[in-house]
Amino acid sequence: MIPLIFLFLGVLQLLPSCSGRAVCEDVGPLTTLKEIKEEIAGYQDAAKAIIDLAVCGKAQNRSFERLALFVDTVGHRLSGSKNLEKAIQIMYQNLIEDGLENVHLEPVKVPHWERGQESAVMLEPRNHPMAILGLGSSVGTPPEGIIAEVLVVSSFEELQRRAPEARGKIVVYNQPYKGYGETVQYRVQGAVEAAKVGAVASLIRSVASFSIYSPHTGMQSYQDGVPKIPTACITVEDAEMMARMASRGTKIVIQLKMEAKNYPDAESFNTVAEITGSKYPEQVVLVSGHLDSWDVGQGALDDGSGAFISWEALSLIKDLGLRPKRTLRLVLWTAEEQGGVGSLQYYQLHKGSISNFSLVMESDLGNFMPTGVGFTGSDKARAIIKEVMNLLQPINITQVLGNGEGTDINYWIQAGVPGASLMDDLNRYFSFHHSQGDTMTALDPTQMNYSAAVWAVVSYVIADLDEMLPR
Amino acid sequence: MIPLIFLFLGVLQLLPSCSGRAVCEDVGPLTTLKEIKEEIAGYQDAAKAIIDLAVCGKAQNRSFERLALFVDTVGHRLSGSKNLEKAIQIMYQNLIEDGLENVHLEPVKVPHWERGQESAVMLEPRNHPMAILGLGSSVGTPPEGIIAEVLVVSSFEELQRRAPEARGKIVVYNQPYKGYGETVQYRVQGAVEAAKVGAVASLIRSVASFSIYSPHTGMQSYQDGVPKIPTACITVEDAEMMARMASRGTKIVIQLKMEAKNYPDAESFNTVAEITGSKYPEQVVLVSGHLDSWDVGQGALDDGSGAFISWEALSLIKDLGLRPKRTLRLVLWTAEEQGGVGSLQYYQLHKGSISNFSLVMESDLGNFMPTGVGFTGSDKARAIIKEVMNLLQPINITQVLGNGEGTDINYWIQAGVPGASLMDDLNRYFSFHHSQGDTMTALDPTQMNYSAAVWAVVSYVIADLDEMLPR
Repeated sequence: MIPLIFLFLGVLQLLPSCSGRAVCEDVGPLTTLKEIKEEIAGYQDAAKAIIDLAVCGKAQNRSFERLALFVDTVGHRLSGSKNLEKAIQIMYQNLIEDGLENVHLEPVKVPHWERGQESAVMLEPRNHPMAILGLGSSVGTPPEGIIAEVLVVSSFEELQRRAPEARGKIVVYNQPYKGYGETVQYRVQGAVEAAKVGAVASLIRSVASFSIYSPHTGMQSYQDGVPKIPTACITVEDAEMMARMASRGTKIVIQLKMEAKNYPDAESFNTVAEITGSKYPEQVVLVSGHLDSWDVGQGALDDGSGAFISWEALSLIKDLGLRPKRTLRLVLWTAEEQGGVGSLQYYQLHKGSISNFSLVMESDLGNFMPTGVGFTGSDKARAIIKEVMNLLQPINITQVLGNGEGTDINYWIQAGVPGASLMDDLNRYFSFHHSQGDTMTALDPTQMNYSAAVWAVVSYVIADLDEMLPR
Repeated sequence: MIPLIFLFLGVLQLLPSCSGRAVCEDVGPLTTLKEIKEEIAGYQDAAKAIIDLAVCGKAQNRSFERLALFVDTVGHRLSGSKNLEKAIQIMYQNLIEDGLENVHLEPVKVPHWERGQESAVMLEPRNHPMAILGLGSSVGTPPEGIIAEVLVVSSFEELQRRAPEARGKIVVYNQPYKGYGETVQYRVQGAVEAAKVGAVASLIRSVASFSIYSPHTGMQSYQDGVPKIPTACITVEDAEMMARMASRGTKIVIQLKMEAKNYPDAESFNTVAEITGSKYPEQVVLVSGHLDSWDVGQGALDDGSGAFISWEALSLIKDLGLRPKRTLRLVLWTAEEQGGVGSLQYYQLHKGSISNFSLVMESDLGNFMPTGVGFTGSDKARAIIKEVMNLLQPINITQVLGNGEGTDINYWIQAGVPGASLMDDLNRYFSFHHSQGDTMTALDPTQMNYSAAVWAVVSYVIADLDEMLPR
């Protein structure tokens, strides 16, 4: 999942990361920056060692192979499912066997929703079974399904304009893809807006940058006081076809059947492991991804790869015998897809020590070839991150982009802790995201090596600097 | 479908189209080439008029819109199906209403195969329902299905080497994609080769250049004296996962159920329309695509778009009031996907007048932005086609590539008639080909305009030259 706060990242990424201001003016006395530069330059050998180990050394392809074994064994891992329980137990063992420290599980109550069987068949103008994926938290239909005429709209504005036509109908949203952040609002709010004008169900064009007739699922939200209607994503292809049919004045009738059901919350866990700091063990650089996934594909990309390159970062540092001054803490979140449930509880439990968090990091946007890190923090902190990224010149991944984001780290970022996220080709990411195509085939071992190298260098150096990142 | 003869087009395309020889040496006296050049240069205005009408005039987007209405109304059109019958009747009316001449249907007996319900479920090492598409002409399984252990191989060579392991198993081919021509042999011959070594079924990695968990279907061939075993394509993703599992020594068991069944041949038709030649009506330039498709997606790309830009070529010429000296004949083939059944019968019926066929053209490789035309013929004919393609300089589509091919025109080409095919991005084409993703969404109106312009200019000018193309 991608947080709503992340709505306009696509746009922000295009902006120069420092808004055109000279960096030196913002980091205080030049001597200070000079000192930090010199200190960071001292990590060139360590960075080189990490890169070598990850990219062409013994650890080459390790994160890919570990992940492949994991997802081939467990499959997808929806919040509340037995698969997720099994996944957490396997990861717990993996982290202990890897020799990491303070490996433990922190209990969390998580949502439990199951899609069951589901189908949508166009009955008019011709018989056409459609691929669908019900949306997380959606209610089901009666067992006999819902048969209704369709109203196709391309925006919420069109729905408002044509509100009198919506009563008793299935609203089909054929919104164009304008980047995930903007377009995902149709998936999240489509059912509520359709129900407000009397629709009996809503079918939403999948939020995807490219499609081979692939439906994409994801979370949706009901609203108090608005009837809960069943809601699912259809393919880009069927949404466009129905828009064409409607534009010709053709009547469309669909039968929708969904067994989707919400169950009482289930037990789950955030999974934690550390390399304890040598000098300031109470201070933390948090490195993270989420272990849960949607109930389609293998959850390899979202967010198996983010979780496993985060683990790999600690493995690389440990294998090199490095121990930073501060604690490097790996957290593999649970129930991220349901809105950051595991990470919210973690924040509430640990925010008392927020002054000890130097940097929070999350990789949840794919692990193709990294383009850099997104970063949110003060200009002083950004200048330091830029220096650290310069250590990655040997692999030419040095950009610090506009925004550090992630459902699971946003609580901390909003409270003032600097945050970093790993960035790559988002168009590629949103071709597979939340679809059956989220499998190992979408990933590449070499690209994961580079991702892990970036993640390890940044986390290690920030954890080992004399000072915490300024806020 | 793509013919087997087309096996190495991917490679041939990379070769310079004239093998480095100077063209003038091969077309006889310089005066002759000069005369032809001058004659063809005289078509600049006509070519410009066709291009303008197709790309930015009244006919802009017409082929896309006609096709969208057609495939949205009919859906896919498998040989032997009611959909194909309906499609042919609609096209017959379309061509009459368009004012084309000599519109008629030529009867053909075509194969009738239906896939019915089908499923494959991995039972060991974990429960995993897999997306499959049974292959055309495959037999079904017993109603209870086939449950068997899997042998994964990556090539026919590996299958031979491990033949003793195959008996009683389901053979899974995880052959890498090395271009369609080479790799499709696994789909066509996979069942026969597996049956020869005692396998009970075969599952073949889809022959696709890119996948979002999308199975691709297509034709397969049994062989006399070899047991007929059920065969289907699985996704690239599942093939790769099973290869990984097998490489770890994990036992894989699959339950395969297929209702696939072959029925007696059905009645169908090739659909024909003309612009009759003004001077040599008995001489023909044949422009074609096929109306049938696989029973997935909309058959928009394969080959709705090829059929509709072929129709569009005649419409453009007619709308401009042009009437070439020779007859422009549109043929929309039936049962191409079953191995060129309609076109074989057409060849047998009309080959008596083969000396009257100046050029045979087929568009069956997609209608994205054209890169040029593939051409097979004598060096003299090639030199003429190059001159004609120069008329397309206003839209910068002037390449004459190595091979003119197409299941439906190969009979003529092999008998010595010059042949041309429309070329574009084959990697894109084979992402959608024979999958549920073969829909209007994969097409672009502007790209179809350009395709139609190329098709119309080439067919019109060749049909109107003083002489037929030399052989």
